[in-house]
Amino acid sequence: MAFHQYFNGEIFPVDSPLFKTNDLGLLRGYGLFDYFRTYNGIPFRWNDYWQRFENSARLLKLSLPVSQEETAKMLADLHAMCGEREVAFRFVLTGGYAPDSVNVVQPNFLIRTEALPQDNPAGRLKGIKVLPYEYVRDLPEIKTTNYMHMVLMADEMKRTQASDLLFHKNGEISELTRSNVFIFRENKLITSNRNILNGITRRVVMELAASYFEVETRTVSYEEVLTADEVFTTSTTKWVMPIVQIGDAAVGNGLAGKQTLFLQKLFEDLVADWGK
Amino acid sequence: MAFHQYFNGEIFPVDSPLFKTNDLGLLRGYGLFDYFRTYNGIPFRWNDYWQRFENSARLLKLSLPVSQEETAKMLADLHAMCGEREVAFRFVLTGGYAPDSVNVVQPNFLIRTEALPQDNPAGRLKGIKVLPYEYVRDLPEIKTTNYMHMVLMADEMKRTQASDLLFHKNGEISELTRSNVFIFRENKLITSNRNILNGITRRVVMELAASYFEVETRTVSYEEVLTADEVFTTSTTKWVMPIVQIGDAAVGNGLAGKQTLFLQKLFEDLVADWGK
Repeated sequence: MAFHQYFNGEIFPVDSPLFKTNDLGLLRGYGLFDYFRTYNGIPFRWNDYWQRFENSARLLKLSLPVSQEETAKMLADLHAMCGEREVAFRFVLTGGYAPDSVNVVQPNFLIRTEALPQDNPAGRLKGIKVLPYEYVRDLPEIKTTNYMHMVLMADEMKRTQASDLLFHKNGEISELTRSNVFIFRENKLITSNRNILNGITRRVVMELAASYFEVETRTVSYEEVLTADEVFTTSTTKWVMPIVQIGDAAVGNGLAGKQTLFLQKLFEDLVADWGK
Repeated sequence: MAFHQYFNGEIFPVDSPLFKTNDLGLLRGYGLFDYFRTYNGIPFRWNDYWQRFENSARLLKLSLPVSQEETAKMLADLHAMCGEREVAFRFVLTGGYAPDSVNVVQPNFLIRTEALPQDNPAGRLKGIKVLPYEYVRDLPEIKTTNYMHMVLMADEMKRTQASDLLFHKNGEISELTRSNVFIFRENKLITSNRNILNGITRRVVMELAASYFEVETRTVSYEEVLTADEVFTTSTTKWVMPIVQIGDAAVGNGLAGKQTLFLQKLFEDLVADWGK
């Protein structure tokens, strides 16, 4: 049993060379992706992820070669082939092979199965450090493959023991490289709604929080983040992750926030029971 | 005889699938490229193109697996294999295969040989139309593979019979999607020096022009371009190409400028005699 991938209608081992070298994803960065995982063997919020993937494809004017139903069948096949109870799926849709290296002819559609990402239980408990970084993602609503700055800054993050970058521009924050940002001011939960990717975990956390906190979605200033009582980030791989340091500045008292840990527990309970 | 490609030390037919699907160029848009061609069978300004490629790689912190001398040998082999007198070479350097989909381990280096791009003699004679587009390229000094907006706008360009986009932001122009911009105000030649890729054809044209015109390199406002006497663009594939329409507005009298055509002739003469 091993991880496999689906590519344009066929299944291959996950480490097979598949892409010809005139693919627009490779030559022109014209590609989008999505990434999600199972809990208890069941894909988490599959409808939400599929709808986001469809939305990204529509905004990049790429036609999807398969329906949601056909894709669900492939996910089941790939999942069965890997022999693991839990698996992560990565969708990649590129502009496809382009004889003129500019115009889309037929997109290439890939689904990779991958081992679950390494967990970070210490980060969830104690919180992580992020580096402020002046940048706003291009076409932020689309989950494009453009992560140039994240890869470029990987060394610097290691050197400074930071886990991620906090994007801010013109005094306003947007998101981390691959996750959304929330702050608590007293017991009000606030998250940015501009220049962000609409995270599925973000949505789930807002749903969970609604019973306990006032939730505001609006532009959030960098200053507000620096002076917040609690800050955390959400993503498919990070769940609800406290942020306790921004550059050299501690958030609040420098410890993971209590309300953050409360939301984290709600999320953990939800996924622990997923599909049951 | 057929076009081949070099990939990490081996030679393959140009349409072979080569890239595994965890390449950082594909998954994260972490890649750069360069593109040049021969005249009279000799690579044009090879030292300049190599130095630009090296510079891009250095700025993206990617190590080049081969020296300029080794690469020159590969170019000669690939050129011989294609059986064509003239050929275009495309270098692509990506972040390589990444088990964690973030950190660079070992770059992938590709050299494709390609047929020369289709010439546009009518465009060179009569000039082209461009669409103004509010955008500035990210990391403009690096020849990254990020051409998202160019591919996204390809339909709109076709619909409006435009050949390219003119990037402008905050009242300042930078470049077209893949080429530099020059204007003439009377007999003064002006080209932007900010947020641009340092084009080799741009450099050659400035060298050629220096004997005949005053040449200024500085920021250029969008307004200056709209009111210029002549506008043209330069690139490896476009040579010296008059721009006669910007959106709905004609440049000057709407005809290719005389000084532009003079520089075009100088460039054509130079490449006609290249290597002789």
